[in-house]
Amino acid sequence: MSSRTYLRGGLVLPLDERHDWFDPGVVTFAGGRITYVGPMETAPSPVGDAIVHDCSDRVILPGLVNTHTHTGMSYFRNLLEDLPSPEWFQHELEAERHLTPDDIYWAALLGAYELLRMGVTTTADRFSHMRSIVPALEHAGLRAIVAPSLVDSNAEARQRESLSLLEQYGARGDGLIRVGLGPVGPDTCSTGLLRWTRAQADRYGALIFIHLAQSRQELREVARRGYHGAARYLDAIGVLGPDVVAAHCIYLDPEEVTLLGARGVRVAHCPASNAKIEGRVAPVMALERAGARVGLGTDCAASNNSMDLFSEMKTAGLLHKVALGDPSAMPVPKLLALATRRAADCLDVGDEVGSLEVGKRADVITVRRNEPFLQPWHDPCAGLVYATRGLDVQEVWVDGHQRVAAGRLLADDVAEAVARAAAWGVRFARSRHNRPSAVG
Amino acid sequence: MSSRTYLRGGLVLPLDERHDWFDPGVVTFAGGRITYVGPMETAPSPVGDAIVHDCSDRVILPGLVNTHTHTGMSYFRNLLEDLPSPEWFQHELEAERHLTPDDIYWAALLGAYELLRMGVTTTADRFSHMRSIVPALEHAGLRAIVAPSLVDSNAEARQRESLSLLEQYGARGDGLIRVGLGPVGPDTCSTGLLRWTRAQADRYGALIFIHLAQSRQELREVARRGYHGAARYLDAIGVLGPDVVAAHCIYLDPEEVTLLGARGVRVAHCPASNAKIEGRVAPVMALERAGARVGLGTDCAASNNSMDLFSEMKTAGLLHKVALGDPSAMPVPKLLALATRRAADCLDVGDEVGSLEVGKRADVITVRRNEPFLQPWHDPCAGLVYATRGLDVQEVWVDGHQRVAAGRLLADDVAEAVARAAAWGVRFARSRHNRPSAVG
Repeated sequence: MSSRTYLRGGLVLPLDERHDWFDPGVVTFAGGRITYVGPMETAPSPVGDAIVHDCSDRVILPGLVNTHTHTGMSYFRNLLEDLPSPEWFQHELEAERHLTPDDIYWAALLGAYELLRMGVTTTADRFSHMRSIVPALEHAGLRAIVAPSLVDSNAEARQRESLSLLEQYGARGDGLIRVGLGPVGPDTCSTGLLRWTRAQADRYGALIFIHLAQSRQELREVARRGYHGAARYLDAIGVLGPDVVAAHCIYLDPEEVTLLGARGVRVAHCPASNAKIEGRVAPVMALERAGARVGLGTDCAASNNSMDLFSEMKTAGLLHKVALGDPSAMPVPKLLALATRRAADCLDVGDEVGSLEVGKRADVITVRRNEPFLQPWHDPCAGLVYATRGLDVQEVWVDGHQRVAAGRLLADDVAEAVARAAAWGVRFARSRHNRPSAVG
Repeated sequence: MSSRTYLRGGLVLPLDERHDWFDPGVVTFAGGRITYVGPMETAPSPVGDAIVHDCSDRVILPGLVNTHTHTGMSYFRNLLEDLPSPEWFQHELEAERHLTPDDIYWAALLGAYELLRMGVTTTADRFSHMRSIVPALEHAGLRAIVAPSLVDSNAEARQRESLSLLEQYGARGDGLIRVGLGPVGPDTCSTGLLRWTRAQADRYGALIFIHLAQSRQELREVARRGYHGAARYLDAIGVLGPDVVAAHCIYLDPEEVTLLGARGVRVAHCPASNAKIEGRVAPVMALERAGARVGLGTDCAASNNSMDLFSEMKTAGLLHKVALGDPSAMPVPKLLALATRRAADCLDVGDEVGSLEVGKRADVITVRRNEPFLQPWHDPCAGLVYATRGLDVQEVWVDGHQRVAAGRLLADDVAEAVARAAAWGVRFARSRHNRPSAVG
């Protein structure tokens, strides 16, 4: 870590505001921070115990930033298919009852390994049992802003856990883990709990992570409380603000789009999940025009069924072109920004990650470029969005620590995490049907 | 080839009409044909010079079938982004002028390698210069139904090439290559040329591959000829029939949907391409209800920007759920069938490929199942559609010949195909801008 790492000879896409690139280019980092980004000619020469990677067959870019997922739900991958939304949520809750805290640790580790393998270096992660999940994320070495779930059921214990985590890790700490507040949604949190969340967010300077306008069920519950629209309700009770990261936002009327923009809300846009479990597309362009900040998220393996943010860029592009009936909508540079710089802004870590710039944290990935399914790279940004998949990621560094090399996770318990997931699948199938799982 | 190959211990998904599976299961083949599909217990034991693959960490399924692509256009990957449709077609035609026959051979080889690497074993392929493309497909060892482009420009030479290929390979031959007739579309082919195509299709028993209802430009040209709708026009001039494979079909009115169904037309559905260059979704469910047969296609690297039929299944699912506003629409088993059995039916090769059945051709693939981003496999079909990507394919056999092993193409000129694609990218950029390519 103290020695300097040199990534040499690749196509460097810093994805900063200048829209520059260098080919061949060099990225160097030391002590967890980026020390050089630029062309080969002016790059510093490796000295002493420098670690040098020849990246001539690779693209070098910032690690991707995922604004919304639940690694603790990774065991529900390939479980909840083609269900009407109310049934999806009901079955998901039933499956949750089969998770022990130990299962949740390993599910989160599985998810963290998936994210790292796919080139995600920073994620927002929310679920119950965050005391089991944080050690998994720390063990994997992923940068994360975590938010323990707050709902009315057992609210006091959940509030205590939230504050305890906030005290321990801080809302703006220097480590890989930061903590936010995680009210699950306007329909599962009382007005009192939501107001408590607002007060704690103000007190700690923490972000509020909430599912917003995600389902018709939610709108019905909000209507029962006397409000037309989930965003309007949150605003009326004083919760909306520029520190709110609202996931989904698919059931909004035009006035609520304006409202979210006016409040400077951050939006975690999860196109695959929204399409899969609600059959809808969030009004991202309108939200941005109104003033909201938007970043991409994969949502969880239960709804996606993967957490590949490269695929998510492509999905976002295709869905918006169709939703707007316009092939020029949601262009390539915007899609790439939504998974990097803008996503980092959504999570309040834009000054540290989301682009390759000297002084920023060394969250860096490489992707291969010499495969039959990637060439030619006429437009490297288009290549990354529409041709590259997470599986094309070759190396991943988080805070200067290498987590993936030659497309393989460097951790020594990946196979164990996989085996435990498979075993849970068998146990779950048996518990439901009193017979062995179909697949195991 | 004469020795028997045993794929043992994997989860076998035959994807035949019985919707059966075997875990652990066995698939064996010899002489290019499948000889056993079933559970481990009743499988024959390997004898003599048998080749045995331990597939316990893999899923075994039929090779995927791609109903529409253009391998000869692979060099336009990442070139034509976010353009309104008329500009997309104009720029594509301009780029075509930079392809020599040699370029087209290598572009087709690049595309064939991509398809094989992604688990596609049968493809429909159409483009000009099919005399350059067929040798590439044969060299790669891909099963293909090829259709040389027919358009008004230089029509006589094109007609001669079509008939010469038909005579050489046949419309229903036993080899890997079969030949169809490829009028490009109702807007680029005169009524006379289309009627000539119909006559030759009848004479040779060949399929007609045509782009249909693909763009507004096409509808305008058809209107100029006095017809409302491209399908109505084709029917009026006597071309529509159960031997027509119509790609895209995104600009249809409800009556034309009924018409295509009544004629038993086959539809090559290309969801990513349609979304990307037209911002539309084909009415697949309505077409099937009306009686049309539908199969999935990737279209080409120019419009997709990949030819990954696994991704295409996911894209089809998400786009249809949104288009119909129904999360239960386009369920997993249908998506899997659209890329296998039904696609094979669309290409008239359903009696030979598209499912694992004794006596069928040995077009078999395996995909890994023990990765953090694939587990658990509660529902193996859901896993294949929504979690697996083409890059998860581990082995590919076409007609019993292995083409991919451990995720690597076995051909010895893959690197050359990639290098030539990169070099073409540089030449193309120089020719347009008189400066080196951005990426190379």
